[in-house]
Amino acid sequence: MMKITVINTGGTFNKRYNPIKGQLEVPKDNIALNKIIESCHNVQFDIKNIISKDSLDMTDVDRERICTEIQNSISDNIIIIHGTDTIHLTSAMIKKRIVDKKIVFTGAMVPMSIDESEATMNFSMALGFLSANPSLGTYIAMHGVVVNSSKLVKNREEGKFLIQE
Amino acid sequence: MMKITVINTGGTFNKRYNPIKGQLEVPKDNIALNKIIESCHNVQFDIKNIISKDSLDMTDVDRERICTEIQNSISDNIIIIHGTDTIHLTSAMIKKRIVDKKIVFTGAMVPMSIDESEATMNFSMALGFLSANPSLGTYIAMHGVVVNSSKLVKNREEGKFLIQE
Amino acid sequence: MMKITVINTGGTFNKRYNPIKGQLEVPKDNIALNKIIESCHNVQFDIKNIISKDSLDMTDVDRERICTEIQNSISDNIIIIHGTDTIHLTSAMIKKRIVDKKIVFTGAMVPMSIDESEATMNFSMALGFLSANPSLGTYIAMHGVVVNSSKLVKNREEGKFLIQE
Amino acid sequence: MMKITVINTGGTFNKRYNPIKGQLEVPKDNIALNKIIESCHNVQFDIKNIISKDSLDMTDVDRERICTEIQNSISDNIIIIHGTDTIHLTSAMIKKRIVDKKIVFTGAMVPMSIDESEATMNFSMALGFLSANPSLGTYIAMHGVVVNSSKLVKNREEGKFLIQE
Repeated sequence: MMKITVINTGGTFNKRYNPIKGQLEVPKDNIALNKIIESCHNVQFDIKNIISKDSLDMTDVDRERICTEIQNSISDNIIIIHGTDTIHLTSAMIKKRIVDKKIVFTGAMVPMSIDESEATMNFSMALGFLSANPSLGTYIAMHGVVVNSSKLVKNREEGKFLIQE
Repeated sequence: MMKITVINTGGTFNKRYNPIKGQLEVPKDNIALNKIIESCHNVQFDIKNIISKDSLDMTDVDRERICTEIQNSISDNIIIIHGTDTIHLTSAMIKKRIVDKKIVFTGAMVPMSIDESEATMNFSMALGFLSANPSLGTYIAMHGVVVNSSKLVKNREEGKFLIQE
Repeated sequence: MMKITVINTGGTFNKRYNPIKGQLEVPKDNIALNKIIESCHNVQFDIKNIISKDSLDMTDVDRERICTEIQNSISDNIIIIHGTDTIHLTSAMIKKRIVDKKIVFTGAMVPMSIDESEATMNFSMALGFLSANPSLGTYIAMHGVVVNSSKLVKNREEGKFLIQE
Repeated sequence: MMKITVINTGGTFNKRYNPIKGQLEVPKDNIALNKIIESCHNVQFDIKNIISKDSLDMTDVDRERICTEIQNSISDNIIIIHGTDTIHLTSAMIKKRIVDKKIVFTGAMVPMSIDESEATMNFSMALGFLSANPSLGTYIAMHGVVVNSSKLVKNREEGKFLIQE
């Protein structure tokens, strides 16, 4: 059975509404992820829940932590759930530092708890991509495609990740 | 931009509740599919909506129709949305007849209109798989993996597609 | 705190999709109801789950059972969740037989599991109506109003309950 | 047909996620409300969308505006959708100023766009209460009951409206 390590670092993908505070929070759990993978009957997941931050608040220490988790992962197939605002920074750092794994970054513009389709699509594209046994490298799965992580860039005005040639 | 032809033939993936008849129907539209692809900003889809049947009712004539649509498709990347009960029959027939395209069958055990996560996951794995530029062939994307179409089989007692070695 | 007895007899309100059978079923549980009442912090509910049928299959024996449950209820405020096809028959029978309680029939055209708004609206109108301390009698809460149970009739062509003067 | 004026002033009930800004906003539209009333086939609604604020930002000028809208309403049955943080202030002011209408305040702790059941329940209790033809007065419909507006108070620690004797 296919083995995949998922490193869930937080971001919009995971956000949930806290009715007492009246705002969205990044919870320290995998509820959003678990809803998707409950139908993944042919994958053995190893899930690491770390950091749990909006990616605007992610520090260099956090990025080192992600790097260490990847280096220690039991699988060479890795999906990283990450906030969209600094996913380009973390993926660029990982791309330089780790060359012997298949790493797919993903995330969402809309929380899974608000609308399931975009978050589920982005994560599941990563699954399908890893099923194809791609070359070692660092990729990003967002908005319809999975490509080399430097090629897909967030357009902040439109709220879309778009391929940048 | 990546081009993908989607041949939407119906099945549980598309079913919607008709409150007047009090039952689920296979509609002749792409509402379920459109919800998923509205976030696919980096793919150009060519969508064919044909047959619109529960796959238990699919005939040899219907299968010929699917075959013809594939042969005439403007893209070599093809996703076929199909009912789960006879997806093995149609994919086996297509596998024999068409060898010069990348064809991914998918579907769902639960209608998109009832729960978005499984249907979105299955379809989106097909997207991610095609992003990896796989070999020509006929595949199936269900329940966590995308594999050669003969290898993933519906277990009717459990309601799961499972890899059969 | 307000006390309400809820007699949940099944019907479309409760239906859920069974992915293994590929069809909607009337489950023998209160999952649909529980989703609504989890926000009812000012009501003490006594819930009876009986019959669990599509109302087309409801028999005279079933109706006697409902009558007995009402007579034995610990509260005089009663909400009955019932299938829409024979809600007029059961409510007419109860109206004749029980005159010393406040009984509100309700149900849904679309299962709570498929779309939460109509089922929640119908049930919650019954709650609001009972909050107003109405006269003893048998009522129906559907599609925007709560009225004497003989006045609101299902229009089968349109799939709507409409007031019949 | 029953006539009801709905004055939609904003609040959590209406909030929607803006993926570009990455936050919840109070939109200047009735999308949340329209989802509920699309099944209200026996009510003629007159909807006023005004203010569109989180109720913490509501000013005395805004409250005067609500008062004027009520005085000018074409129906004597009025539902006011309001943020939960200052619903007690606005309802207390309206209670003093207007004595010849049936006014029901309502709102939600969780946006309709995130979870439909609580918002739908609160609004629909107001509908059911007005169906019972209550005495003139100012009421609040939240969390299972509809009572005199001064009797139901937000418990901020628990995120619940609770009856205060």
